[in-house]
Amino acid sequence: MQKPSLPKGTRDFSPEIMVRRNFIFSTIEKVFQLYGYLPIETPALENLSSLLGKYGEEGDKLLFKVLNSGNFLSNIKSEDLQPDNTGKLSLKICEKGLRYDLTVPFARYVVQNRNDITFPFKRYQIQPVWRADRPQKGRYREFYQCDVDIIGSTSLLNETELIQIIDEVFHKLDIRVQTKINNRKILTGIAEVIGEPEKFIDMTIALDKIEKMGTDEALNELKSKGFSQEALDKLRPFIELKGNIQEKVKALNILLKESNTGKEGIREIERLFLLLSELNLSSDVIWDVPLARGLDYYTGTIIEVIAVEVQIGSVCAGGRYDDLAGVFGMPEISGVGVSFGADRIFDVMNQMNLFPLDTVQKTQILFINFGDKEEMYILPLLSRIRNAGICAELYPDHVKLKKQMAFADQRNIPYVALIGENEMSSGIITLRNMNTGEQKNVNIEELIGEFTT
Amino acid sequence: MQKPSLPKGTRDFSPEIMVRRNFIFSTIEKVFQLYGYLPIETPALENLSSLLGKYGEEGDKLLFKVLNSGNFLSNIKSEDLQPDNTGKLSLKICEKGLRYDLTVPFARYVVQNRNDITFPFKRYQIQPVWRADRPQKGRYREFYQCDVDIIGSTSLLNETELIQIIDEVFHKLDIRVQTKINNRKILTGIAEVIGEPEKFIDMTIALDKIEKMGTDEALNELKSKGFSQEALDKLRPFIELKGNIQEKVKALNILLKESNTGKEGIREIERLFLLLSELNLSSDVIWDVPLARGLDYYTGTIIEVIAVEVQIGSVCAGGRYDDLAGVFGMPEISGVGVSFGADRIFDVMNQMNLFPLDTVQKTQILFINFGDKEEMYILPLLSRIRNAGICAELYPDHVKLKKQMAFADQRNIPYVALIGENEMSSGIITLRNMNTGEQKNVNIEELIGEFTT
Repeated sequence: MQKPSLPKGTRDFSPEIMVRRNFIFSTIEKVFQLYGYLPIETPALENLSSLLGKYGEEGDKLLFKVLNSGNFLSNIKSEDLQPDNTGKLSLKICEKGLRYDLTVPFARYVVQNRNDITFPFKRYQIQPVWRADRPQKGRYREFYQCDVDIIGSTSLLNETELIQIIDEVFHKLDIRVQTKINNRKILTGIAEVIGEPEKFIDMTIALDKIEKMGTDEALNELKSKGFSQEALDKLRPFIELKGNIQEKVKALNILLKESNTGKEGIREIERLFLLLSELNLSSDVIWDVPLARGLDYYTGTIIEVIAVEVQIGSVCAGGRYDDLAGVFGMPEISGVGVSFGADRIFDVMNQMNLFPLDTVQKTQILFINFGDKEEMYILPLLSRIRNAGICAELYPDHVKLKKQMAFADQRNIPYVALIGENEMSSGIITLRNMNTGEQKNVNIEELIGEFTT
Repeated sequence: MQKPSLPKGTRDFSPEIMVRRNFIFSTIEKVFQLYGYLPIETPALENLSSLLGKYGEEGDKLLFKVLNSGNFLSNIKSEDLQPDNTGKLSLKICEKGLRYDLTVPFARYVVQNRNDITFPFKRYQIQPVWRADRPQKGRYREFYQCDVDIIGSTSLLNETELIQIIDEVFHKLDIRVQTKINNRKILTGIAEVIGEPEKFIDMTIALDKIEKMGTDEALNELKSKGFSQEALDKLRPFIELKGNIQEKVKALNILLKESNTGKEGIREIERLFLLLSELNLSSDVIWDVPLARGLDYYTGTIIEVIAVEVQIGSVCAGGRYDDLAGVFGMPEISGVGVSFGADRIFDVMNQMNLFPLDTVQKTQILFINFGDKEEMYILPLLSRIRNAGICAELYPDHVKLKKQMAFADQRNIPYVALIGENEMSSGIITLRNMNTGEQKNVNIEELIGEFTT
């Protein structure tokens, strides 16, 4: 006998949880569809060659690798079988891995199907992803993402639309959010003007940590990575930049005047806010200059959405990537997208009590089972009731009435139908309201009428 | 640059395919719900210890194993690193695997959550499963199953209900099917009376092959497995059994008179057909005495559904299992369930042209993009249109009108809205019907009216 358990960081979803999760998924999906996005799905298994090198060094380590079937050691030399060589060895005994996000599989999909796709291509995708991360509160090894992307258009209207979608989804879910945006070109510009263009990635990683650890700590980290004091002194004003959009634009145009890329980023942000001003958004969109979003593939606008009333990290995030399809052989096709984190959204809604009053229970009537003869009598009645679209059940076993009533109670089934010898001979059904205890006699037509009008 | 590809046996689903698959899933799901089944989901990743030994020796080999993260060789002795020892080694370097079906994870779920579950528990589950099988036409390494099970009741009403569900699902999908049933107790009885109770599994494997290879070939296979000629001579009448239910019951009661288990199986089949006779099923249910269903865990009724008009193997199958939860520490809780094969159902419907006339396209109106000023003007209009529940899009780039019209054409968007300088100054919209080429001028209220009435 074995005690059953689940791999850490994974979860079962009970019927009660499923109903709530489906409410989130269907709300998100309806908004995606309203904006003209089309669904696709890609397999959980991808070739590791499609995944490796797309998520930075850390990401590569977090990929779940799937052991080759059959004799996976057949082409391995004995010198490869060293415990200090597991990184390389793992790639020789594993060709496949579990997808890490939905963006890279989407880029692969687009390149593979480019001849059948009408560009600009707007797709959504709602599927689980896997990461061999250390599990902790709100962080799982298997979790769902809900992605929405447009590929094949560089227009900032796409960013505008995504921010609109974010606004509409969270408005519908009744979650108060703040959307932070920035542009990686501005970050590139900053790295240039502070004289550390080579250490761009170190800089973005540190910037992402400012909110958690504070500015001084983040700058110290950069010092330890070899940033000069002069560079750090030049970086500080960017982090501490205050003011409204116009004021920030003005200040940055001066600070970044030596960087063409940086100025391009400013122009994009300015235009994006102009487009957004035409919309009547119900949530705030702010410009967060230190916002960096660690993923290597972002090249333009970056977006991060946080819940205002619950501290849980971002509930949605994304950005523009100019070169993602390039690694698969289709260069210069720009895309932009965001990913909604269903698990965190679930946690926020749970904590804030935002789920509508739902009941898992859809069964309206439970027929009590008094024995062989009665169940034969009930079967055709049950068919008629279900044909009328009413969800009904017959208790399958001949057990005591008390036990069957307790079952109806626990399952929150609102009505119980009793058919014994008397009822069979007179063609009536005793219908009991489980909430009030009231009972009445009805025939089958009356019973169907009760539940369909 | 790398050429993108997918692992063999896996597939992408395009928007066109997704719509059709979702039609199948939602049809199945609605029937499950009508009969009072509740949804659950379990993770793709399970501990290998939960999966191994549940699907027979062959099944164990077909499990996809996931490499442990970090230094997976740290506890491996060098003598284990032998190419001829990969079976054992794989279990030392992999703790987790991908689920192979939905039944075993369900059994694990039930045992783990037994204190929160009201029994009998009726659940459905629609998720992908993975098998390292040799891919071929209609057989994939990653595919969806739609499972429906009742656990905690031995009543044959459950089998009756599942057969009713099968009938209703395929009726709704417009697929003509035949449902074959049998009972593993009868097979146990047969193995007993032919004198080969120890070789029960060999016998069931051979019986399952009769349809493909014929009776003689199947019996020859058993001969090579060590069945005596006397046993084979006794087995043949079971395979060649003819007649209606009553005739088969009569014949088997004689043939199996020495086996109590066998006679119990006959009684169950007889009662099941009696219950089914109360229902007005639209498809045939037949008793196929050699039907065996290879899975080790079945103990009672077995069910297999084939499409009548397309040769593709079974489109749905299942059976009763008395001991499945026992291996997880919860003995004597009987369950019964069937699994619908969404991929084969898809193939049948495609081949028979059974999908309703669907259009992926939900977008009703494409707004042409003439430039910066126009897009700013259109954005708030678009919000009003979408708020009215109409799916509409604005072309994101400033490209030639011809290209934008071609886009609307390829995407099958029925209406195009044109707003240039004139339209902006007069507050009208030129609305073009893409099918007829007809154009008319409307204001925004009239446009919304057109699409909501």
